[in-house]
Amino acid sequence: MKGIFITMEGPDGSGKTTQIDLLGRYLESRGYEIIVTREPGGNKISEAIREIILNKEYTEMGYMTEALLYASARAQLVSEVIAPALEAGKAVISDRFIDSSAVYQGIARGLGVENIYRINEYATQGITPDITILLDLPAKVGIGRKKEQKELDRMEMEKLDFHEKVADGYRQLASLAPDRIHVVDATFPIEEVHAQIIGELKDILI
Amino acid sequence: MKGIFITMEGPDGSGKTTQIDLLGRYLESRGYEIIVTREPGGNKISEAIREIILNKEYTEMGYMTEALLYASARAQLVSEVIAPALEAGKAVISDRFIDSSAVYQGIARGLGVENIYRINEYATQGITPDITILLDLPAKVGIGRKKEQKELDRMEMEKLDFHEKVADGYRQLASLAPDRIHVVDATFPIEEVHAQIIGELKDILI
Repeated sequence: MKGIFITMEGPDGSGKTTQIDLLGRYLESRGYEIIVTREPGGNKISEAIREIILNKEYTEMGYMTEALLYASARAQLVSEVIAPALEAGKAVISDRFIDSSAVYQGIARGLGVENIYRINEYATQGITPDITILLDLPAKVGIGRKKEQKELDRMEMEKLDFHEKVADGYRQLASLAPDRIHVVDATFPIEEVHAQIIGELKDILI
Repeated sequence: MKGIFITMEGPDGSGKTTQIDLLGRYLESRGYEIIVTREPGGNKISEAIREIILNKEYTEMGYMTEALLYASARAQLVSEVIAPALEAGKAVISDRFIDSSAVYQGIARGLGVENIYRINEYATQGITPDITILLDLPAKVGIGRKKEQKELDRMEMEKLDFHEKVADGYRQLASLAPDRIHVVDATFPIEEVHAQIIGELKDILI
């Protein structure tokens, strides 16, 4: 693949959307043609799947159902958006990707990281991020920010204990793949976090 | 598991719904407590997934997305409906199950039967049908019947070539698992097909 694939990961409320916006503008100013997308979603079919996953009324959803729905939304996003964009030499920035499944379903839901990777091998066509930025912050701070911003969805409504498993899970994952996953302290002010991210991306940008 | 798990398989228009209806009544008359369900669907979440899968507007849906959506609908059906019913000693009759994925996505879509089984191991919790009735008929006859009955959905709208791969695929699968999959000629009149099915079930009923 000729493009660059950057994924932004982190607990709810870690500032992924804001940082992706800033990063996208930075890359454009550097002459990159960019595609910004999000998971689950990023195209018509995956957004329909997203509505099911995040629907607050579906409290009876099984963890494996949830994991397979994320994988199906990812399969469509990869084949319809990400793979063609990378093939065309673009810089793709995705708000969440496979690491979210590894952490939320594999670790926090307890399905096992290996199982999640095996399911997702089918969804990703072997495409992995060139670099992943992990916005790290205490779970309590993140979910506190979310509550101020919007009505919480089915995943965000989970107990604090779940969000703590997510934050810890991300740190575990980063320690297993330190070359790919770069940890950035998301408790700093927006502009400082942005500067840290640009620093982490230095080696990968032309 | 204490109950009996019967699945009804076959190409579109092979008469599964009619035969399940007759079989259900027969089993009830024999004193069984029955649960009739269908795939994709059979509960609120899986029916919502069904709407995405069969939506005629989603012509851009990738084959892997489709396979993972069927698996996610199956995961919810197994955990919410099938597993509890079998645990409670009921007879469960399902209109389609894992063999449909093996045939439609594995063979007709070309994703490979082994890949489909591997994905679905996660969805089924290891639950396999005690017996599967395959309603066999020429693809052309089946899809011709469907066209008379209703407006075709996204899967039914596939070309005849696809439906022929499905009919052949079912026969292949039956030849690989002859102890579980019992083939019944579905070109016969309804009552004769029903009688054949009852005959095939003799060894499994108490």
